[in-house]
Amino acid sequence: MAKGEGMIGPNMATMLCCVVTDAPLEAEQAQRLLLHAANRSFNNISVEGHTSTNDTMVLLANGLAGGDKLNAADEAVFSQHLEAMCIELAKQIPADGEGATHLIEIRVTGAASEADARKISHEIACSNLVKCAILGGDPNWGRIVSAAGYAGVPLDPKQLGLKVNSIELFAMGEPVAFDAKVASAAIRGSFDTLIELTVGQGKGECTHWTSDLTVEYVQFNSEYTT
Amino acid sequence: MAKGEGMIGPNMATMLCCVVTDAPLEAEQAQRLLLHAANRSFNNISVEGHTSTNDTMVLLANGLAGGDKLNAADEAVFSQHLEAMCIELAKQIPADGEGATHLIEIRVTGAASEADARKISHEIACSNLVKCAILGGDPNWGRIVSAAGYAGVPLDPKQLGLKVNSIELFAMGEPVAFDAKVASAAIRGSFDTLIELTVGQGKGECTHWTSDLTVEYVQFNSEYTT
Repeated sequence: MAKGEGMIGPNMATMLCCVVTDAPLEAEQAQRLLLHAANRSFNNISVEGHTSTNDTMVLLANGLAGGDKLNAADEAVFSQHLEAMCIELAKQIPADGEGATHLIEIRVTGAASEADARKISHEIACSNLVKCAILGGDPNWGRIVSAAGYAGVPLDPKQLGLKVNSIELFAMGEPVAFDAKVASAAIRGSFDTLIELTVGQGKGECTHWTSDLTVEYVQFNSEYTT
Repeated sequence: MAKGEGMIGPNMATMLCCVVTDAPLEAEQAQRLLLHAANRSFNNISVEGHTSTNDTMVLLANGLAGGDKLNAADEAVFSQHLEAMCIELAKQIPADGEGATHLIEIRVTGAASEADARKISHEIACSNLVKCAILGGDPNWGRIVSAAGYAGVPLDPKQLGLKVNSIELFAMGEPVAFDAKVASAAIRGSFDTLIELTVGQGKGECTHWTSDLTVEYVQFNSEYTT
């Protein structure tokens, strides 16, 4: 169970989440598995990047399923299911962001580390220019690549590759020839947008989900007072 | 002479600036003074926080004024004037930001260091929620204080103080009683908005300038393709 609110930033967001299981988890194990899942789900979503002060995510395991402590193989299966469920819940928060017309998935691969991939995916996700481009159905590789460029991670442009909705826009440091009308129609025609950036340095990966930035977002957040 | 463009982020922004002087500056001296001024002007402005890849700021000194190398006292005077001029030029960039209806000055004082003050002022300046609040004339202390809170600087809420357009909204960790209509009218009635946050830790200061986030900003940046 998860509930999002305003102030959705890339550090759990304003969020209440309670995961329950009857698996026989020990406290240390439950905390470790939950942190792993949070770092691939609720810590990777944003609407406007404004991290809230109030977030709670708990995993309650009452052990009613019985049996011994999970062994490594069982734990791996449990962890996979926990992560998948948290991702499913986490994505619903930006999908329901104020005025959102697109859910944008930013998948960064090939970074030197997961930490580097995280910095890059979060920087792209928090760029108003990227979010406006997706609103407008604009396959604007320059805004995406330049956001990656200021993430504080040394990048070699010649190693970068970018696809939006599986259409290649940028490869080996150069824009590639693509049909702008087709690429634009692919963005406009789908609520889900997939941005895939390869960095060409290693095996670090991170995926971040955000919403587009719309007129309705601005109206909503300027016209109400809290 | 300075010219701003799109992608105005807190690291010089997309900007071309050329400062000329006939003062007898040496190269090391000119570079040092220019960096000092840039760190208090062009490196402290943003519109959407998307740092550009293309920025140039140069100081040309032909020495035609003659005389010896500036001594410490003269250098201090020159530095003050250079900084003041750069601030004046830098402020014009967010003031002319796409769709801007407010120029927001964020003045952070009392931080443990200038670096800490910089992190806090930049985080507030890049918050879409703060920028929307100013658009709407909303003296929303919660959005401002919480943005300071996620800047990565340890803060004691009880030491924080906040004024917007000289009206105290928050002191010693608590909102204070203020006339919301008066505070709102003060924001709505002026293009210039002054946010003053005191942190109560030391002598570190930083001032950042940004624009509000408006419907026109979103329309402009979603409807054109580059």
